[in-house]
Amino acid sequence: MRTSQNLLNTVKEIPADAVVISHQLMIRAGLIRKLAAGLYTWLPLGLRVLRKVEAIVREEMDRAGALEVLMPALQPAELWQETGRWEKYGPELARLKDRHDRDFCLGPTHEEIITDLARNEIKSYKQLPITYYQIQTKFRDEIRPRFGVMRCREFIMKDAYSFHLSQESLQETYDLMHQAYTTIFTRFGLKFRAVIADSGSIGGAVSHEFHVLAESGEDAIAFSDGSDYAANIEKAEVVMPKGSRAKAGVELKKVSTPSQHSIEDVSQFFNAPVQQCLKTLVVKGDDGSLVALLLRGDHVLNPIKAEKIEGVAVPLTFASDAEIIQSCHCKPGSIGPINLNIKIIADRSVTLMSDFVCGANEDGQHFTGVNWERDLSLPNHIEDIRTVVEGDISPDGQGQLHIARGIEVGHIFQLGTKYSESMKAGIINEDGKNQTMIMGCYGIGISRVVASAIEQNHDARGIIWPVSLAPFQVAICPMNLHKSERLKLAAEKLYQDLLKAGIEVLFDDRKVRAGFMFSDMELIGIPHCIVISDRGLEAGMVEYKSRTSEQNEEIPLEGILAFLQAKLKPGIA
Amino acid sequence: MRTSQNLLNTVKEIPADAVVISHQLMIRAGLIRKLAAGLYTWLPLGLRVLRKVEAIVREEMDRAGALEVLMPALQPAELWQETGRWEKYGPELARLKDRHDRDFCLGPTHEEIITDLARNEIKSYKQLPITYYQIQTKFRDEIRPRFGVMRCREFIMKDAYSFHLSQESLQETYDLMHQAYTTIFTRFGLKFRAVIADSGSIGGAVSHEFHVLAESGEDAIAFSDGSDYAANIEKAEVVMPKGSRAKAGVELKKVSTPSQHSIEDVSQFFNAPVQQCLKTLVVKGDDGSLVALLLRGDHVLNPIKAEKIEGVAVPLTFASDAEIIQSCHCKPGSIGPINLNIKIIADRSVTLMSDFVCGANEDGQHFTGVNWERDLSLPNHIEDIRTVVEGDISPDGQGQLHIARGIEVGHIFQLGTKYSESMKAGIINEDGKNQTMIMGCYGIGISRVVASAIEQNHDARGIIWPVSLAPFQVAICPMNLHKSERLKLAAEKLYQDLLKAGIEVLFDDRKVRAGFMFSDMELIGIPHCIVISDRGLEAGMVEYKSRTSEQNEEIPLEGILAFLQAKLKPGIA
Repeated sequence: MRTSQNLLNTVKEIPADAVVISHQLMIRAGLIRKLAAGLYTWLPLGLRVLRKVEAIVREEMDRAGALEVLMPALQPAELWQETGRWEKYGPELARLKDRHDRDFCLGPTHEEIITDLARNEIKSYKQLPITYYQIQTKFRDEIRPRFGVMRCREFIMKDAYSFHLSQESLQETYDLMHQAYTTIFTRFGLKFRAVIADSGSIGGAVSHEFHVLAESGEDAIAFSDGSDYAANIEKAEVVMPKGSRAKAGVELKKVSTPSQHSIEDVSQFFNAPVQQCLKTLVVKGDDGSLVALLLRGDHVLNPIKAEKIEGVAVPLTFASDAEIIQSCHCKPGSIGPINLNIKIIADRSVTLMSDFVCGANEDGQHFTGVNWERDLSLPNHIEDIRTVVEGDISPDGQGQLHIARGIEVGHIFQLGTKYSESMKAGIINEDGKNQTMIMGCYGIGISRVVASAIEQNHDARGIIWPVSLAPFQVAICPMNLHKSERLKLAAEKLYQDLLKAGIEVLFDDRKVRAGFMFSDMELIGIPHCIVISDRGLEAGMVEYKSRTSEQNEEIPLEGILAFLQAKLKPGIA
Repeated sequence: MRTSQNLLNTVKEIPADAVVISHQLMIRAGLIRKLAAGLYTWLPLGLRVLRKVEAIVREEMDRAGALEVLMPALQPAELWQETGRWEKYGPELARLKDRHDRDFCLGPTHEEIITDLARNEIKSYKQLPITYYQIQTKFRDEIRPRFGVMRCREFIMKDAYSFHLSQESLQETYDLMHQAYTTIFTRFGLKFRAVIADSGSIGGAVSHEFHVLAESGEDAIAFSDGSDYAANIEKAEVVMPKGSRAKAGVELKKVSTPSQHSIEDVSQFFNAPVQQCLKTLVVKGDDGSLVALLLRGDHVLNPIKAEKIEGVAVPLTFASDAEIIQSCHCKPGSIGPINLNIKIIADRSVTLMSDFVCGANEDGQHFTGVNWERDLSLPNHIEDIRTVVEGDISPDGQGQLHIARGIEVGHIFQLGTKYSESMKAGIINEDGKNQTMIMGCYGIGISRVVASAIEQNHDARGIIWPVSLAPFQVAICPMNLHKSERLKLAAEKLYQDLLKAGIEVLFDDRKVRAGFMFSDMELIGIPHCIVISDRGLEAGMVEYKSRTSEQNEEIPLEGILAFLQAKLKPGIA
């Protein structure tokens, strides 16, 4: 296409509400415009990117054997009442009444609708497993829409739903979708991780999130450098540390620590590294008693893990000072495991500590040189209760964990029978018995992919699109196009040649200065740029600029098509 | 694709609410399923057709230089208040409040949103003219949704909007869109007419509707057999009849007609054809006086035309018997133009009548043998006030008019400044003056195209898709696939060969009887079908069945690809 066809809507101003870089760049590059809070119009350039995301997702869903359908956005309340979500879903569900005063909502998700379709359409167990998907507009009345299309009120999702007779069949489709998602995100050209996730309120047991890695991501994820293990940091397991405990080197000693309460105080007082200080946290048990949680001084308690341990109250509740004094006869700052009269749960990493410091269960007193088995027994309860840190061993034993930030863009769930049971979506199985279908569901935030791609790939000058998502693969930038007839002819011919070769090319035929043109092309992030000038043509040369490199290359005009085709080969960004 | 992949959802039952054939066939062929009144899920087969419609529309809009955008469905009330439509639009507008109690609606159309975009984005008159379009879900809370996707509450539209500095520029884009629509409907493979239309409540002066011809159509349209003139029957002009009046043949005579009031009574009484009887209708004038409208007995008054005549009250109101008796001193059944004391407006066709019958303005009395200029003067006011009939001369003088029924699927309007003025969408023109932009708008009912294609193309066995809209171009129907290894191999190879050639092919690999298979393929309307059997293979032959012919052809297997490619050449249905 030609820029003279009003294709570009680049602007200099950044609206005040655009606090993240992707939002700023999407406005500046003219991809979107705000209509109202959380509502955006996609302009031509942005829509081209959105359609590329859609096309890749559609191709891979089709390849995985999923059937595309299109369900209404407007959903009758009756179906949501069947699953109980009409009452449970909060104000994020946009509700309205039709002219006959009947209740409807605008679908934020389609479990009810697809389950209704499945219970009507699936007549025989022989049709199972079956996976339906759609690419469709969703509505979510966010309390605080923000970050542009990243968290908005109307957005495009790919949502897929599978139906099964058995858990094994669900697992098979789940694995297939996991693979399809991996292919999709790879084809996007984005750095990503599939992480083990909590399935949250949507229900079900097994779930993975697909995160696009970006420093600005809202989620922290732990991933291995030696395998494809990755998990939401809340969920990443810390395995039993390898190696053995160092031998005791010093004697047990009780020391007066009149005003040392925190780990930092104690560490400084004894001039001991924090990892040699034992942290003892006291929480409530589920029977009203207190429970002590032992952690290495530099580690952080993971409340989600702690809540899963038998005997610990849910939600996790710290004991008050008064409760601790009443049970343990000293203030929290001096609590320690030696002779402690409440239940003790030690984090796995604690078992490797030696010559450590801990409270003495007397106000203003700490022990130093404490050693397991010599000064006290290892606690009966050794559990994983801390949050992973950089360098932890990967739970699968392969490699070390690293922490990165990510943007959740995909999510796959094993739903089980949460929806099919309440909606009586059953089928007569091979044995002639009615059986509730088992479900999986699989989402990708289509609009969000666009924003996350920018969060991951940008610089001070603008967006740096991966070739597969770029609105155009190549830009032709002629210098002073309107001053040379030879240049006009050559640029036009180059444009037509590239089009004929199937390359998506943007021909910047505006009457603008070179600097203005380049900064527009960099802002909108076209991967490859051909600069063509009258002077260059004299020598039969054009200039090639890559969006990711400062170095320009001189290329003979006659070889430029082959040069670009090599650059655009799949797999080369 | 393979039918074994759960692609077909054909059913025998016709739901009670499906009264039109397209609705029945869309359900039976498994294209759509009803979720609630006026809300439908598109199943895989239906969605394939919908996407084909979308693709053709998108290609031609792009070719016409329109820029694709995507606007939100959720629209803030503020913009609708600017144009006054928030108050004026009836209950068809689906309204809702967000969690902060702000008013929104679900867009049935996007004039307000695009005008808002244009007033913000268009910075210079040099950017004009510009045309934006989108293919998007629309909402209309119909009081009585019916006919399946033909009149439903959530549907897909292509809506386009153009902005201009001058009426000439609007006319240029309007003509371009008219041409693009003609190409689009031609590519659909549908019989259609672009008809001159009333622009109705959306405003503006010039407008054309694009109708898909079908006997079941809600609208009657008049079209010429000698040119491309076509108009909504309400709008079609009846030109001044050619030829001259026959000479008077009989004498004027007053006859007693004691109980003859209607044209039919009079015609029968005098044994004269109705077209020789003059009909005199009395309506109100806009000043309270009465006006007589003269029509040939077999013609029908067109109230829309009558209302446009100066002096006639709007809306058109017939005078009561009492009013007529008071002014004309006789009952309506005996009114006629001779010595009538109220204003007379004659339809153009009336001027050619001779030796005719009319009321004598005395109760129970009629004249026969009446002739213009001999017995009375021609009225001063000769106007076009009747509805066209089959055989009328085309207003452009080329050919005769015929009446057909159509389904309105597209509509183009010259909006003028209706929206841009109230929303202050102005631009500084070349002379440095602020000028309100002039607008056009152009819609196609994407979902409705699918239904109208079926209304036009079906038979007792099912849908007959034009090739360009068919979900698959070719079906492969193997006979007893699972009983012969040779057949399996040959059918599979044929399937792969056709796929490789880029043909959209449906491979019916289900274990079903031949009759069942054929009736499914006919129901879903696949244009071309290849029947492959073990017996045929022995002779190296397959059978070709066209959806539109009863005759099957034997074709050598090795020539079938070339045979199909010839059939699928653009332009051959």
